Formats: sequence, structure tokens, C-alpha cells
Amino acid sequence: MTSSEAVFAQKASWIWYPGDYEVWMSNRMQNRRTERGSFLPPFWKLDSHYVLIDFHKDFVLDAPETANVYVEGQYNLKIDGKALPGYPKKIEVPAGKHRVSLKIYNQASVPAVFIEGKHVFTDTSWRVTYEDKEWIDASGKTSDISSTKYFPAGSWNFQDPKLAPSAFRLPVQEQKAADVQKEDHHFFADFGKETFGYVKLHNLKGKGKIKIYYGESKEEALDTQKGELADEIEVNQPEAADYTLEGSRAFRYVNIQFEGLSANDVSMLYEYNPETRRGSFKCSDEEINKIYDVAAYTLQLNTREFFIDGIKRDRWVWSGDAYQSYLMNYYLFFDSPEVTHTLLALRGKDPVTSHINTIMDYTFYWFLGIYDYYRYTGDQAFIKNHYEQMQTLMNFCLKRRDQDGLMEGLPGDWVFIDWADGLSKQGQVSFEQLLLCRSLETVALCAKIAGEQADAVTYDAQASDLKKKLFSYYWNQDKHAFVHSRINGKATDNVTRYTNMFAVFFDYLNEQQRQDVKKYVLLNNQVPKITTPYMRFYELEALCALGDQAKVLKEMKDYWGGMLKLGATSFWEEYNPAKSGAEHYAMYGRPFGKSLCHAWGASPIYLLGKYYLGVKPETAGYETYRIEPVLGGLQWMEGTVPTPKGDIKVYCSKVEMKISAAAGNGVLRFKSKSKPSCKGAIIKSLGNGKYEMAVSGGKDYQIKYSAI
Amino acid sequence: MTSSEAVFAQKASWIWYPGDYEVWMSNRMQNRRTERGSFLPPFWKLDSHYVLIDFHKDFVLDAPETANVYVEGQYNLKIDGKALPGYPKKIEVPAGKHRVSLKIYNQASVPAVFIEGKHVFTDTSWRVTYEDKEWIDASGKTSDISSTKYFPAGSWNFQDPKLAPSAFRLPVQEQKAADVQKEDHHFFADFGKETFGYVKLHNLKGKGKIKIYYGESKEEALDTQKGELADEIEVNQPEAADYTLEGSRAFRYVNIQFEGLSANDVSMLYEYNPETRRGSFKCSDEEINKIYDVAAYTLQLNTREFFIDGIKRDRWVWSGDAYQSYLMNYYLFFDSPEVTHTLLALRGKDPVTSHINTIMDYTFYWFLGIYDYYRYTGDQAFIKNHYEQMQTLMNFCLKRRDQDGLMEGLPGDWVFIDWADGLSKQGQVSFEQLLLCRSLETVALCAKIAGEQADAVTYDAQASDLKKKLFSYYWNQDKHAFVHSRINGKATDNVTRYTNMFAVFFDYLNEQQRQDVKKYVLLNNQVPKITTPYMRFYELEALCALGDQAKVLKEMKDYWGGMLKLGATSFWEEYNPAKSGAEHYAMYGRPFGKSLCHAWGASPIYLLGKYYLGVKPETAGYETYRIEPVLGGLQWMEGTVPTPKGDIKVYCSKVEMKISAAAGNGVLRFKSKSKPSCKGAIIKSLGNGKYEMAVSGGKDYQIKYSAI
Repeated sequence: MTSSEAVFAQKASWIWYPGDYEVWMSNRMQNRRTERGSFLPPFWKLDSHYVLIDFHKDFVLDAPETANVYVEGQYNLKIDGKALPGYPKKIEVPAGKHRVSLKIYNQASVPAVFIEGKHVFTDTSWRVTYEDKEWIDASGKTSDISSTKYFPAGSWNFQDPKLAPSAFRLPVQEQKAADVQKEDHHFFADFGKETFGYVKLHNLKGKGKIKIYYGESKEEALDTQKGELADEIEVNQPEAADYTLEGSRAFRYVNIQFEGLSANDVSMLYEYNPETRRGSFKCSDEEINKIYDVAAYTLQLNTREFFIDGIKRDRWVWSGDAYQSYLMNYYLFFDSPEVTHTLLALRGKDPVTSHINTIMDYTFYWFLGIYDYYRYTGDQAFIKNHYEQMQTLMNFCLKRRDQDGLMEGLPGDWVFIDWADGLSKQGQVSFEQLLLCRSLETVALCAKIAGEQADAVTYDAQASDLKKKLFSYYWNQDKHAFVHSRINGKATDNVTRYTNMFAVFFDYLNEQQRQDVKKYVLLNNQVPKITTPYMRFYELEALCALGDQAKVLKEMKDYWGGMLKLGATSFWEEYNPAKSGAEHYAMYGRPFGKSLCHAWGASPIYLLGKYYLGVKPETAGYETYRIEPVLGGLQWMEGTVPTPKGDIKVYCSKVEMKISAAAGNGVLRFKSKSKPSCKGAIIKSLGNGKYEMAVSGGKDYQIKYSAI
Repeated sequence: MTSSEAVFAQKASWIWYPGDYEVWMSNRMQNRRTERGSFLPPFWKLDSHYVLIDFHKDFVLDAPETANVYVEGQYNLKIDGKALPGYPKKIEVPAGKHRVSLKIYNQASVPAVFIEGKHVFTDTSWRVTYEDKEWIDASGKTSDISSTKYFPAGSWNFQDPKLAPSAFRLPVQEQKAADVQKEDHHFFADFGKETFGYVKLHNLKGKGKIKIYYGESKEEALDTQKGELADEIEVNQPEAADYTLEGSRAFRYVNIQFEGLSANDVSMLYEYNPETRRGSFKCSDEEINKIYDVAAYTLQLNTREFFIDGIKRDRWVWSGDAYQSYLMNYYLFFDSPEVTHTLLALRGKDPVTSHINTIMDYTFYWFLGIYDYYRYTGDQAFIKNHYEQMQTLMNFCLKRRDQDGLMEGLPGDWVFIDWADGLSKQGQVSFEQLLLCRSLETVALCAKIAGEQADAVTYDAQASDLKKKLFSYYWNQDKHAFVHSRINGKATDNVTRYTNMFAVFFDYLNEQQRQDVKKYVLLNNQVPKITTPYMRFYELEALCALGDQAKVLKEMKDYWGGMLKLGATSFWEEYNPAKSGAEHYAMYGRPFGKSLCHAWGASPIYLLGKYYLGVKPETAGYETYRIEPVLGGLQWMEGTVPTPKGDIKVYCSKVEMKISAAAGNGVLRFKSKSKPSCKGAIIKSLGNGKYEMAVSGGKDYQIKYSAI
């Protein structure tokens, strides 16, 4: 391959209608769940891709050019509107300006095309539509009025023309068990830690049945009646050969019973999404280091075709779960496409007939996910291309408001908030209004980016009106806190943590309110405790935002350290230190119902990156950023935070900081007992022992200081 | 098979979500079009079925029962909410009350199930949903609030469990050519009349290429450059064997060129929808009889999986074309499912993003189709099950009204009306408002049937408001007619036939206006003539409604007789007697662009049944009906009109009528110079030589009279 060929080969990609592959692939992925051998699909509506798509691009060529054409679907291929006969595998485009277009029909999978030529190739600069709204008159003349909306093509950068999008699979890698107990007709394997993939039986021979019981815990694998995952297969294999199961499962332990068959070993094909850990964290506390590693592994396992909730079950894309994965991702992989793929899979197609995953809060987390996505990546194109879908989803919400302009659970709406005994979902729940308010702010922001100024004004006004109501309806001066809900138009005096802690890091509170919330809610044991890592995420974030990293460090060691002490090799869906033994594995009324590898368990990645290393964007896409290291009781820490412009590296001990950023303009903020110094940089005093220093990309800074 | 088995076997049927199979099958059908070997799909949006469906039914059994289960898709099967393992092919339902449910995922084709047991079997009494909106709490308890909407399952009465819905094909029957000229490397076959199917080459042998040029006319088949349909296939067949082409085509003539191959004969596999001709018409005029037969054959050819426009092209479902087929169908096949299948295919899924087929008038014909469907069949269940889809389509229309409350063509709207040179589509076209008015009346009627009284009031008010506007904005007292349009808020003085003739049979005019329209529009040669059978349909209907069957008979003989004289074996898309020779075959700027077998050419079936035999429903589903025979210059006529309750038979000469109806209550109206008589019946005089007689089902009447 010559070097110019290499250049264009890197650019050509399979393309399709934007969002369609996400919808199609998430259907495929989410329908892989089984429960004790029965198919268990999602209970919400699944959408479908558009089955007939028009693709085009105009090319200006100096010389004629031939390109190879690969298509998934039944298609025609046109040059300047004139169809070539049949289903051409090559196209010859003459010199000059010419339009290449295709119309592709595919019911079973996404209409997709890959064209591979020197200049004529497919990429996201192609324009696509599902409705071209063209017609002709009786003379054959095409109408000149058209309201066809074209969008830039979607792509996952699949760059191999021979690998059709519908054939995409995650890669696998064979892994040996850490320990296998082999008896006649029976294997019991321990893979040493939570894992995911396909069980492989070596030299399997004979005719009969194999029963496989999987366990995230030993107890689960041994319980052949009540474990969550089991497979039963019939095999007739007179000659010994390796046999790999068809379905992928989550497990650490595998309990295998052979009837009429024998094998001599068991391994597994680990299935994974190849991610690069760009972020890192290491510190003086070995338990925290272990927590970080297990959290990173937990997130890796749940980062698949999309961000999923858990690998044993549900293996579905849940918006509230995914929202936390986005945030962790910005501090570990910084895989932006994984975020947009997940957002588009969740959004599905119009019409909106229910909340995302049927959960009201999960609709709002979808908007919050967009808010953060823009903040961390600065990707305006995504916002512009999908602004209409934000609008139709927001309109669905706004139409469901009651006479007070608030949202409460209507029939068919699941008000989730958290798994917590006795948590009220009745009436106008303050937490839902708070999330709606931030969602409105998000759509207003996106309207501005999309150039829809009038919309922006409307959404901004609605957000600010709702924010006022939030304080006038729910803030209880005596309780120094937001109350949980209004029922029949009257505020209850029930205080819960949710609204209060979110209001802290949404920056909705004044300083007095912040301190009140800290004292009367977050540090108040009378307010019901949170027992899911899901909501602990936000609780600890609020404490960090209030500057209490020292307390949060202790909480991390207690809570996540608690799971490690129980032998966790990945973090759980729920952890209640008050329980003991196999009680920990129960949930949903089932002895092994709990997921022991749940993405929302991995939040220390986010907390350590954002609030200890202290790195976050100040303006979209890290154009400007802040670095505000806080040791929180650690002796030292060092780590890397990925950004779209390269990495930001931070080392911090009690007397020294080392900072380097690949690009962009940042500001370092810190406290010091002594006057700090940095060669080649000016440190500004802000008073009260606070200091600030400008950081420029490409330079290394070494700061001498004295931690308070 | 025992007789009780036979009974249940007749009832069990493949079922799916209502409307989904129509959407899926119409995608498949409409994507079969080719133009000179290039794939030519529809240019409007194609929708898709729901990919994940929940099916259930509650059974009460005296004894346990085993039933066979056939499924298209990946599924689970539950009894009382508990899933059976794997993909069971049988289900055992215990005695007592039990719920059988399935959840089926299928991306490529419609999720469908066939269960075959004595009492436990699938039919349209099953309930289905695409969104069950159920959730659980942390204890595993299912929510008790649910807003899930269940609908009765859809079905096409596919009663063979082994024939999956996705494998459905229309039957074929081999037919010989009427004449084949065989030369070396060349066949020219004439099948004697327009036909449709797959060319079959007998004892094909060798290796090389076959080029096939199809022609509805001889000229087209001989024109290898500009005929509309051509196939080119490569064959390598060392041993002689029959070879059938993969694609079905429309043709009378086939021109075949062999390169490197030989064959000894050619035939074709006629592909057809097996319909029973329940309606019939025969009279003293042989030319009219021939017109009726060719019209019936034309409709038969275009009645396929759905009612299509034409068999050469487009082979698509066009709402305005289909609307006429519905009406003809009520007088020929009375195939009600064919109507609902076509209506549902056209309606597709929400959201509505453009008019049906992108044409504003075609959206309205969809509503008119519902209006007539209810009138002729009395099927309330269909109205109830699809009322929401009527509403969302009507809302799309109502949102597009301008400041005057009228609809004009917005960007992306095709205002079609008819193929006619110089026909204005600008501004507020009166014809579109007229169709909108009847559409509103239709939705109001359906709202009543669906029990939505408040909606009915709203739609009725909107219809009556629009009707007033129609007269105040468009009725021109000097022209004694509706004018064509308003431009910039001012009525033009352009008179066209469309609005005026529809207003006649919509019964929107008073007697004076009716006579004015007849004189100043219909019989006025200054008003531009209509040259498509499409609009001639309505023009002649209006004349019939005005009692001028004599003139219409002459017109039929001239116009349809004119096509027969030119050798037509099916009726055309357009016929202009002023043209000559091969000019007749041209359209859309292409020498053979015209379709010579177009459903809208078959309207004499409807006119002869409704306005000569004079049979039509007075109340929905022929609960009551009218028989008003009009000879219109014929010596005698006889025929059958099908109804949901059986056939109505009419014989009428100038001195005698014979009437029999299978069921229901009808009234016979006629004129007589002399006092008529009928044994066993009372004839009431209405004055002015008009008479009326009650007709009861199951009796034969013989009336002596004397035609005026």
C-alpha cells in the first residue's frame, strides 16, 4: 500500500443514518439477557432503525476515479441522479463535479455503505435522510421545492469493508481458571475474580447433557436451584473436541455437571471492549489504590457495546446507571463515542411514548448526560445533530406537568430515585423537579449551540421559573433543607438526602444553604442512610464539593473497603454493612438477585479524579480547566486525567506538587501554610492561605508549598 | 384428524401486533420495483414493525391441555408469569384459570406466534402490547399501577403453523404464451394479454448471458433501449433444465436474447392473489360487457398483497389510487381484509412526518377510505382499534393550517389533484379544503364509534366551520361553481371540475347548486377536460349521482371503449383520445413511461354496480340498503352486488325487474310509466312516476313495470 492509499484507507468508514446503528445494536445487545436459561428481554419499548435511507455526497475530482462499493442491504447507486444497473460493486466517477448517491433498503439490519476510493469514499461528511420528499410531474420533471432534511452520516469508524456492521462482535481472549476441581461428571472452576465471557470445555466427548451453573459468588454457583444464571445444553460429539458455549455470561465460579460426556479442562473466552486506561490514580493508601483498581475493572467490565448496568443482569442500558458511567469514563477512558453511542441508544426514536427505561428520573439523567458530555468534550456537532431529539423528549416531559407546573408520577411513570425501603414516590417529589430544572438548563444551552435562540429564551425562562418554585415550594427554613415532596399541594416535612445533595453540586445554593445542607442533612444521622453505591456517588460528591475530602476518604475506605474485605473483586449493586454472609447476595426477593459487578459501584474513579487530583473543565472541552488538588488526609497522590487535548498529570504531596498538561490553559488552585514557589511561574495569593497559578499546556511545573 | 381437531385447527392463526405485518409486508412488496434492472424503492419514509411484543391470553380449562408452539423470533413463554426454560415447542397448561404469555423479539420480520391446542390457541382474542410499562421494587414486587395499553392481536388468518408469516408468497400458476417466435438466440413471446409473473425458460442450457426486454406493448418489448423493464442474467447450466427468473414483472410481450445459451420454449408463472369475483354485471351492450370484464381483470392484477397502483410501475401502495380500488372492490370481490391491510400499510407508524405518499390529497383519501369502509362493512372493531392513528394523522393536518384555517402546500407537501397540464397547485386550493372537510367528518364519526364523545364534538365543529368557509370563500355566484383556489387571500376566477364534482356526490350542494354544477361545469366544454381515468372516475360518478346514467354510458363506451379499440387488454393510467399510435404509451417524458394496467382504470366496475344496478348501503354494513336500478339506455342488465350479509341480485329490463337479497332490509326505488306490480309485495307510489318497495332478505321479487 502506498502512503497516499494509507491516508485514504484510514478515512473510509461504514456509514449509516445517525443513531440507527445505536438503536439496532442496543436491541441486539439488550436481548442477550437470560435468566436461568429463559430469554429475558427489556420491558420497555424497543425502537427500530429506518429501513430505507438515501445517502449522497458531491465530489469534485481532477481525474476519473474508480472506487469499491460495499453495501448492507438492497440498493441502487447513482451518479448525478442516474442509476447504474443492478447492484454494482464498483463505481467509476468521472472528473469534474459529480454527485454520488445511494438508496439502501434493509429491514433486518441497518442500511449501511462503505465506499473505498482515493477521494471518493464514505465518511461522516456524507449526507443522509430517511425521507427525501421529492416528486415529479407528469412530464417527469422533479419538483424544485423540497423540505428534505439531510443530516451528516453516522459512523462508529468501522474501517474494514469486509467486516459488515451487522457482523460486529466484541473481541475475546482465552483465560484459564485459577483453580479447577475435577471429579467424575463434575467440574468446579474458580476464575479468581469476576469475569465475563463464554465457557469453553476442552476435549469434550460423548453424547448427553451438560448443566452449567454460574456464580458471582461460590454460594451462587453451588445453588443449582436458585442461582441466577444456568445453561443446559445437549451435545453429541463422538470425537473429542473443544466446545465453546454460545451465550456469554458473568461469573467468577462455574459449576459444571456432565451427563454422558467427559472433558479434561475448562477455560473461558473473556469478552471485552478494548479500552485504554488513560486515567490513573495512585496514593500513599494501599486500600484506596486497591479500591481504584477494582473500580476501574468494574467499569471496564460494564463498558461494552454501550455502558450497561451490570454484567450478570440486566445487561441493559439504563439511563441513570449509564449517566454515572459517563462521568467515571471522563476520568478513566475518556471514550467519547461510547458516551454518544449510549445516549443515542437510550434516546431511540420518536414518538416518545414513555420515560427512558420508563423511569422519570432516567429521562432527566439523559439530559444531564448531554450537559456533562458537552462540558467534558466540547463536541458541538453532536448537540447540533441531535437537538431535535432533545426537544421532542423535553416536550414529552413538559406536557406531563400538572396544574402547578410540576411533574409527578402519572400512570406508567416509574419514579425511581433509589432502592431504599419506605422511600415515598407520591405526589410532587422535589428531586424530580430539581432534575427537570437542570434538564431545562441543558436544552437551553443546546438550543444556543444549535442556533435556536428563541428556543433558548423559552427554555431558560422555564428553568428559572422552576428554580424559583423549587425554593418556594420545598425549602423548609426550620429544617434548613429541601423537603422530599408535596402531597395534595402541601409540602411534607420529610427530609431526604437526594434533592439536598444534588443542589450542592448543581450550585443552586447560597453559602448559608450549603452549610445548612451539610450540617442538617449530609452529616445528620437522623436522615435515612443511603445503601446503594448509586446514590452514595452523589452523596460523596456533595461532600467533596463542600470540601470534606477527608470525610469522603474515610467513607470510601469504610464502604468500598468493606466490600473488598468481603472478597469483592468488582463492586456491587448494593452494599449494606449491616448484613452478613450470603445475605449480601440477596436482592429483589431472590437469594442471588444482587449484581456483584455493577457500573454504579465504580464511582471512586470519578471522585478521586475530580475532587482529589482535582481536575475538571472550566469551559467546554477543557478549553480552560481547573486543577485543585486536595489530599484529604493522604500523604501523597499522583495520577493522570485524560482530556480531549491530551493528559493532565498531577503529583501532590504535603510539600510538593508537580503539574503538567498536554495543552490548553488551566489554573491551579491550592492552599498553603507557607508562601509557595514555582520556577518559571507566578503564583498569585488570593488571601487566607489560598493561591492560584496559571498553567499552560506543554510545560512542567514543580511547586514547593506546605499543605494545610 | 378428528372432527373436533378440525374445528380448533380452523380457528388457530398466526398473530402479531395489529398493523405490524402490513407495515413489514408493504416494505417487502414496495421494494420489489426495478427500472431497467436498477432497484427503485419508494421515495417516502418506510416505517418498521415493533421489534419486541408481549402477547397474552387468559384461559379457563376443565382439563390440562398440551398445545404446540410456533414462533417467529427469539422468545420466552410464561404460564402465570413464570417463564419456561429455553425456547419451548410445546406448552402444558393445567386445568383452571391460567394466563399464557409470550414476549417475542424479532428485528428482521414481525414477532409472531402460532399456538395450536384444543382450547389454547392463538387468534385475535389475544391481547398484545409493544410497551408493557411494568416495573418492580427492590423486593421484587411488581408495580400495581400500570398504564399499559393492550390491543387485540392482528392476523391475516394464516392458518398453517408450518408456513411462517415472513415466508408468505402469493400463489403462482404456469401459463403458456399465445404465440412464440423462436429464432436462433432470440425468442419473441406474446402472452395474449397483459399479465404478471415470472418468465420461465424451458430446457435452458449453456453458459452466458440472457437479456430479457418486457413490454406491455409490442413496441416497448422491441425497444431494447427505452423499455421500462429489462433483466440481464448470467447463467452457467451445462445440463438443460428449466430456469425461472427471480423477479416478477408486468408484461404482455417478452423479447429474449440468448448469448451462449439455448432454450426450447418460454412460459410464465402467473402470480396472483386468489380473489373470488362475487360481483358481476352483464347487459344488452356487448362493448359494456367487455369493458366490465377488462376492468375486472385490471383490478384483479392490481389487487396483490395490497391494492397497488399499477403492475409495471410503481407496484407501490398509493393512497389515492388505493381509495378507488376499495370502492371497486366493494362491487367485485368485497375483500374487506384487503382494504384494512392497505389502509394500515399506508398509515404506517407515528410520528407522522409527512403526508401519506407525501401527497396532501392522499392523506385525505386515507380518511375517505375509512369512511367508505365503515359504510360498506360496518366493521366497528377496526375503527376502535385504530382510532388513535386517525387522530395523530388528523393532528398532523390541523397543525399545518394557515391563518385562515385552510391547508395549502407547505414545503415538502405534494398537492397532486390530478395529472393535468397547467393545473395550478398554488395557494389555498378549494379541492384540498373539501377533502379535509370530509376527513374531519370521518374522524368525528369514528370518534363516536370509539366512544370519544368530546372528540366527536370538536371534529364535528371543525368540519362544519370549514364547510361554511368552503362556500363563503370559493362559491362564485356568477360562475355558478366553486372556483379552484385563493391566492394571497383572494379567490381566483379559475373554475376546474374537481371540487365541483366531489361536492355533488359528497352531497354538499342544494338542488340549485347541483344543477348549476352540472350545467356550468360538468357539461361545459370550456372547463378543462379530464384525461385520466383517475379523475374520470369521480366526474362520471358525479354525473351518475345527478341521474345522467345515459350520458355516462356513452362516455364509458367512448373512453374505455376507446382503449379497447386500441387493443387494450387492461385499462391504462391515462388515455387521451387525441393522441395516436405509440404516443399513447408515453408519459413522464419517457416513451413507455405510461402504465397500461393501472387500478384506477377499472372504475366501470364501481359505476355499473352502484349507479346502474343501483345497489348501495344506506346504513353501515348494509344493515339497510337501497336498490335503484337505472338502465341508462341499456335494453336490459343483470348482476350481483356482494355485501357482508350475502349477495344482492338484480335483473332489470324495460318491463321487468327481478330482485333478491340474501339478508337485511332494503328499499327498491324506480320510475315507471305504468303502475307497477309485484306478487307478495306492496309498492308505494311517491308521485311523479316514482315508486318504492321494501325488500326483505331471503325472498325473490319479480316486478312488472314500464321504464321511463
